[in-house]
Amino acid sequence: MVVKIVEFKKIRVKDGIFIEGMPGVGNVAMVAIGNLIEELKPLHFADLLTSHFNSIVLIKPNAEIQILKGSFYYLKAKRDVIIYFGDQQANTPEGTFELINEILKYIKKIGVKEVLTFGGLQVSEIINRPPKIYGAVSEESLKKKYEKYGVIFDETSKRVGSIIGAIGMLAGYAKYYGLYGASFLVESVPTHFVPDHRGAKALLELICKILEIEFDFKKLDKKIREQEELLEKLKMRTTLKEVEEEKEEKKRLEYIQ
Amino acid sequence: MVVKIVEFKKIRVKDGIFIEGMPGVGNVAMVAIGNLIEELKPLHFADLLTSHFNSIVLIKPNAEIQILKGSFYYLKAKRDVIIYFGDQQANTPEGTFELINEILKYIKKIGVKEVLTFGGLQVSEIINRPPKIYGAVSEESLKKKYEKYGVIFDETSKRVGSIIGAIGMLAGYAKYYGLYGASFLVESVPTHFVPDHRGAKALLELICKILEIEFDFKKLDKKIREQEELLEKLKMRTTLKEVEEEKEEKKRLEYIQ
Amino acid sequence: MVVKIVEFKKIRVKDGIFIEGMPGVGNVAMVAIGNLIEELKPLHFADLLTSHFNSIVLIKPNAEIQILKGSFYYLKAKRDVIIYFGDQQANTPEGTFELINEILKYIKKIGVKEVLTFGGLQVSEIINRPPKIYGAVSEESLKKKYEKYGVIFDETSKRVGSIIGAIGMLAGYAKYYGLYGASFLVESVPTHFVPDHRGAKALLELICKILEIEFDFKKLDKKIREQEELLEKLKMRTTLKEVEEEKEEKKRLEYIQ
Amino acid sequence: MVVKIVEFKKIRVKDGIFIEGMPGVGNVAMVAIGNLIEELKPLHFADLLTSHFNSIVLIKPNAEIQILKGSFYYLKAKRDVIIYFGDQQANTPEGTFELINEILKYIKKIGVKEVLTFGGLQVSEIINRPPKIYGAVSEESLKKKYEKYGVIFDETSKRVGSIIGAIGMLAGYAKYYGLYGASFLVESVPTHFVPDHRGAKALLELICKILEIEFDFKKLDKKIREQEELLEKLKMRTTLKEVEEEKEEKKRLEYIQ
Repeated sequence: MVVKIVEFKKIRVKDGIFIEGMPGVGNVAMVAIGNLIEELKPLHFADLLTSHFNSIVLIKPNAEIQILKGSFYYLKAKRDVIIYFGDQQANTPEGTFELINEILKYIKKIGVKEVLTFGGLQVSEIINRPPKIYGAVSEESLKKKYEKYGVIFDETSKRVGSIIGAIGMLAGYAKYYGLYGASFLVESVPTHFVPDHRGAKALLELICKILEIEFDFKKLDKKIREQEELLEKLKMRTTLKEVEEEKEEKKRLEYIQ
Repeated sequence: MVVKIVEFKKIRVKDGIFIEGMPGVGNVAMVAIGNLIEELKPLHFADLLTSHFNSIVLIKPNAEIQILKGSFYYLKAKRDVIIYFGDQQANTPEGTFELINEILKYIKKIGVKEVLTFGGLQVSEIINRPPKIYGAVSEESLKKKYEKYGVIFDETSKRVGSIIGAIGMLAGYAKYYGLYGASFLVESVPTHFVPDHRGAKALLELICKILEIEFDFKKLDKKIREQEELLEKLKMRTTLKEVEEEKEEKKRLEYIQ
Repeated sequence: MVVKIVEFKKIRVKDGIFIEGMPGVGNVAMVAIGNLIEELKPLHFADLLTSHFNSIVLIKPNAEIQILKGSFYYLKAKRDVIIYFGDQQANTPEGTFELINEILKYIKKIGVKEVLTFGGLQVSEIINRPPKIYGAVSEESLKKKYEKYGVIFDETSKRVGSIIGAIGMLAGYAKYYGLYGASFLVESVPTHFVPDHRGAKALLELICKILEIEFDFKKLDKKIREQEELLEKLKMRTTLKEVEEEKEEKKRLEYIQ
Repeated sequence: MVVKIVEFKKIRVKDGIFIEGMPGVGNVAMVAIGNLIEELKPLHFADLLTSHFNSIVLIKPNAEIQILKGSFYYLKAKRDVIIYFGDQQANTPEGTFELINEILKYIKKIGVKEVLTFGGLQVSEIINRPPKIYGAVSEESLKKKYEKYGVIFDETSKRVGSIIGAIGMLAGYAKYYGLYGASFLVESVPTHFVPDHRGAKALLELICKILEIEFDFKKLDKKIREQEELLEKLKMRTTLKEVEEEKEEKKRLEYIQ
């Protein structure tokens, strides 16, 4: 039952805005925030260590051990931005509760006023249109602010209903810390074991609008194209395999008859 | 392992009486207390936040995020009434222990002297009579007081035997806080995925007698009628389906033979 | 993670000896200690409340609610005896650790010097001889003392190997509190859903020898006879049923052929 | 949630080096460190007691109860060595987190500067060569130091990928305590229910090189030979059994046909 935040550098802001990326449906938020960090190189100022992650470490290509942790970054934009990137979600409901409360307590202390969280809403297909983003807020008055970026609020209750895990709870508990909270869920089509880069891009575009920052989507666009080509190939291969299997089956049946 | 009570308004009473509604068999207590709150609009003065609920938030129709929590209300009746409405029961035995101890500690501080809890006892059928209510008490001397409202005590041990979850523990641990405790379990017939409004009404009638309050049962009666009509339809549909399935089966068998 | 000891009366002893009964194989220790308490009526001076038991309460025949707890008793014998009777064992390894450490801390404070725990060792049959009792000790020097009561030590390692749950840990951790510890395991034949009174009696006889107390085994002997008659009947019934089933089977086979 | 370290003797060192053995793949580290302790008889100066081990005690041949624990030893070599021998790994991720943090906190206080952990990497076969040892480090600069002992670093990421449990976490979290950390994983072939003495020897040879200590491998070599003879016999027996079974099967098929 431990959540420990290790500060390398003391950051204090005024009217800060908080955004986060963690694993979830399509890993959309993780990819969006991951790309933001890679591209804009915000200042890494603190680590979150916790007993609520799995007891495993990763080995980097250079043989360095990498523990599972949360990382806090500071980005100077029109408003001060505090970014949280989590390698994992807490592995129990109790852990989630403790994690989100410790994060809220810490970012409130830093000077954050607004907590924005991001995730995916699994859908089976999106045809010929960009994925929609559904929003939910800690107070109704916040809707106006985000509707102008194209976020949909009037269907969230019907389409989303409930949000499982840290992102809903961060936004929902924000109120108890005197903070504003909002969750944004992008439609995400499950893609065989790879993150959904298209959904991630939609979220990142929203984030850039909200933060009023410029962003070069070239790299992400390339990944989207690669991913789609890969999926196309997988589909073709699957189709080929199916054709083969059909033939085999026919032979088998002929043999039996 | 967190149970935190956030007070919006400081309420202190003398010789207070505590009643509660939480999910359980037929959700009878939840519906009874829910209706009481809706109708009499008691003062919502505190929230209970805890790590022992699921890590999920709900989205209201207006896109507001609603965390899972317990809510405390104050009702001015002949005696001061403290009402607890829980969105969920704790999700582990440890959580239940912590939850009920924190609630007892808090309501004792407020000035509660008597802890009344409510639930359902699953039965398979109730024919042509109102559901019975069985009682269990922290001290034998309390029985007399509730027998006059028609609560049955002499068969509780045989019919109920043990009570699982928060309601039995709230009443049983009351003694260790110097409080009186009693649990009331209404017979409840499991009704396909809908709460048992008839059982809820029986509990609410008992609550009104104990608290000496007037209550307009019109809305609840309407829900009971609607529910019974729905169940009637479901039964008819099931019967029709069975008839159809029987026909199908006959055809199939004829075809095989 | 709560273990709370509520003292009704402050008991302090010199050179005290601790014995306990909790559920386990054949419930032998529970029955032994339960009979001791019923017969000798020691002073009930404290209750142990904990989050490590199931969240359930029992209803007594008089409709009183009975929580699950541990009870401490004081018995004046040649040496002062502290008795613990537990309604349940802790429901996790963590709970067991906390429970036994809190008990050891408490009884050390009271003045206990020696911790004796009791349980059953499941065997498939005991023919024409009383059940054997195997002992294990926190320090080898303790063996001598108990060997004179017929406790077997030289085969314990081979026959028992390890002890699961609170009783082994109470005796094993005793050393870390500066106390002597010993566990006694009686051979116990699993008897269809009823406690093993014969094993319980063997333990109780040992306890009486150690504590140098007189005990009237009449009631327990009666229970043993009743139990054995019941088992005899069950066996006969089973045999009869088997005979019947055999006949049925024969008929069925004749019918098929 | 308890990790308690009981010190029998206060040990404080300068620039100490920490090594450990706990159960894991092939139990290689446990056997390596176990042999080191048996042979060199370092000073046993502290015990680690914890709620994160199973609630079980073992019975030694002399009927003494042995709790599951961690043991700390001090060895005087060229550098001061602190050895940890764990009877078990923590039984939850939370437990592992707490355990490794308490160990790191404690050994830092003692004066340890370098944390070396050992384990096995399961492989299916090793033919005609000694098992390879893969290394992972808390900081890349440490690689140079261990490469000279034949430890492989450039394939660790590809071959190992991640390390599950305490050994990876001890080395990975070392950094947060201002300590150097490294994990060494030896290739280990699963051998029917017996520890892998060959892998253990490879680790122990590495440990001796690092600590610059002499070690007599006679006993371990004997165990390796015994083990290999046993495995050879098992294999022969299996082959014989297979031959027998084949014959039986043939007969059975002949009988059927």
